[in-house]
Formats: sequence, C-alpha cells, structure tokens
Amino acid sequence: MNPVIETILTRRAVRKYEKQPVPRELLEQIVDCGRYAPSAMGLQTWHFTVVTDRKVLDRISEANAKLVASDPNVPATLKEEAASGRFDSFRGAPCAVLMSGEPGRKFADVDCANAVENMALAAESLGLNTCYIASFVPCLLGEQGAQLRRELGIPEGYTPNLALAIGYGADAPTPAPRREGCVNWVE
Amino acid sequence: MNPVIETILTRRAVRKYEKQPVPRELLEQIVDCGRYAPSAMGLQTWHFTVVTDRKVLDRISEANAKLVASDPNVPATLKEEAASGRFDSFRGAPCAVLMSGEPGRKFADVDCANAVENMALAAESLGLNTCYIASFVPCLLGEQGAQLRRELGIPEGYTPNLALAIGYGADAPTPAPRREGCVNWVE
Repeated sequence: MNPVIETILTRRAVRKYEKQPVPRELLEQIVDCGRYAPSAMGLQTWHFTVVTDRKVLDRISEANAKLVASDPNVPATLKEEAASGRFDSFRGAPCAVLMSGEPGRKFADVDCANAVENMALAAESLGLNTCYIASFVPCLLGEQGAQLRRELGIPEGYTPNLALAIGYGADAPTPAPRREGCVNWVE
Repeated sequence: MNPVIETILTRRAVRKYEKQPVPRELLEQIVDCGRYAPSAMGLQTWHFTVVTDRKVLDRISEANAKLVASDPNVPATLKEEAASGRFDSFRGAPCAVLMSGEPGRKFADVDCANAVENMALAAESLGLNTCYIASFVPCLLGEQGAQLRRELGIPEGYTPNLALAIGYGADAPTPAPRREGCVNWVE
C-alpha cells in the first residue's frame, strides 16, 4: 500500500486534543495543500481563515452554545452539553482552518470540501490529527454573525461552510464502519 | 516533501486520455479510498457507480450534447463542440466513477466531494490521471434522466452530483495558477 492510500485509509476524525500548538510552518504547508485542491472551472471559490488563537475559537464555541441552548429543535443531550460550559465546536483542538465560500457560486461548498479534505490528508501525513467540522457555522451566519465574521477577516458576502480542527490527538478512535452496498459497477 | 503532500501539490486535471483501460484491481483500490472519506455525522450519504463501459459514457455524453445544443444560455463555443460530435463529458477517459447523493441530506454534495477528492489522490498515487467533473449531470436529472439513472444502477431518489474521470493521461497540463489573497491568519 503506497503512503497516499495508507493515509487515506487510516485517517480518523479525532475529537480530543493535546494543548500543544501546531507549528506555523506545518500549518502553512497544510493550507497550501488546501489551495491546491481542484475546484469547479478552476475558480477556487474559497477563503481560508487560519485561527491559532484558542480564545477566538472559544468565542465561536460560546456563541454556538447559546444558539443550541435556545433552539427547540436540538436534542436534549446537545442542550445539556451547551449548558455545561463544555461545548466546543472545535473539539479542544488548538487551531482550526475555517472555510468560507464566495457569494453566488454554485460549487462553493464542493470547492471548499475539496480543500478541507486535502488539508486533512496533508495534516495526517505530518503526524497531526484532524476533525472535519460544519457545526461551527450557525453563529457566523446572517446579521447575528456579521461582527464575528468581520473580526475573523472573512471577506464581505462570503459564507462560512466547513472547517478543519487540527492538532495533536489525545484519542485513538476506533475506525468507523464503512457503509456497505453503496457501489455498483457498469462494465 | 512527503509523498502525500507531493501528490496533492502536483495533481492536475487531465483532459485527454490514452485508450488503455484501467485495471479493475486499481479501480477497486480507488473506490475504497472514496468510501473512506469523511462525511457529515459519519452518514456516508453517497453512492458510487463505476462505469468502465465506454459505450455507456458515450451515451451520457451524447445526451448532454443534445441538452447543450438546445439550451439558449450556453456559450457559442460549447454549442459548436456539442454540434461537432466531439462533445465528451468524460474527456475521453476510459472510465469514470459517478457519485450520487442520498435524498434529503444537507451534506450529500460535501460528502460526495470528499469521496471524489480521495479517489483523485489515490488514482494519482497509482500513476493514473483524473478529471473532476460536474458537467455530466444535466442529462441524468429529473424525469428525462430516469431511464439512464436506472440503467446505471443509481438508487431510487439519489441525485447524481459529481464524477471522476480516470485513465492514463495523454496530456501534461500546465499547473493552473493559484488564487492569491485567499488566506488570512487570526493569531
């Protein structure tokens, strides 16, 4: 098995991290791998916000905890987590790359997804762990998210959609079972 | 530079292929790499249709050429290509993996994108080339696409969204320039 395939098959979402920061040089390599992702028509309809200030990630998590606490459609277990002060959109990772999609682009979510997956694999290859995240988004949307989006340097009109939490894992999760019966061949 | 990062940074979309087929054993490895992609909540809202019968890819391309020819919003150059009989949604590749998203799942496109990007990198690592495609979709949608979807074994209700053409490239494209100014740091 070559190292690319091995990395793809052994990657796991890690939801617990050491406090140890990720060296900036590694983050730069990871983000570059995101920028080299394929995109529809080569348009690269993405923006990357690299957050290494844990206080900023905490503010996003706290804002989301408040939304969860006041949302009648959220399951009770999530509400309890939000009320406990332990709610963390970024799973305790010391940093995260937040993606935002260019306004009015049909494939912005797909372009950003390609970038996140490239970054996840690059991080794994550098001995780091990651968690692919979308649940950080609600507090950054619409009027209520305008101030935070500005502070984060997200360009006007762009929509946050996906993120990758990155760090040194403090957890060795069991491989998630893969869905069966989802492939057919036309030969 | 480790092999994962090297593969990510050197991958290019290839739009011209040799006729040489891709061995089934390699395709199986590639599809497995797709199945090991991350997905929202681990739901794996995807279906993979592996098409190695070039006649089937030609039928999809011909159906799309007809749609392009009758669409008033399509640019003239594309219309000419469609009228010429040279229109090929799959860029001459001997095979393609078509992705379809589970009905009613918000992140189906993102899940499928992650799978396609994993497959693109796996294929590169095996000495193959790829082209990430969305333009094959129109003829497979709605009522007009029902017969073709059934023949392709796409499960009822699933929506074709993305595909990866795979083969041995007959072209060495110039690296596409990367967009500048799309990264900011919050430190």
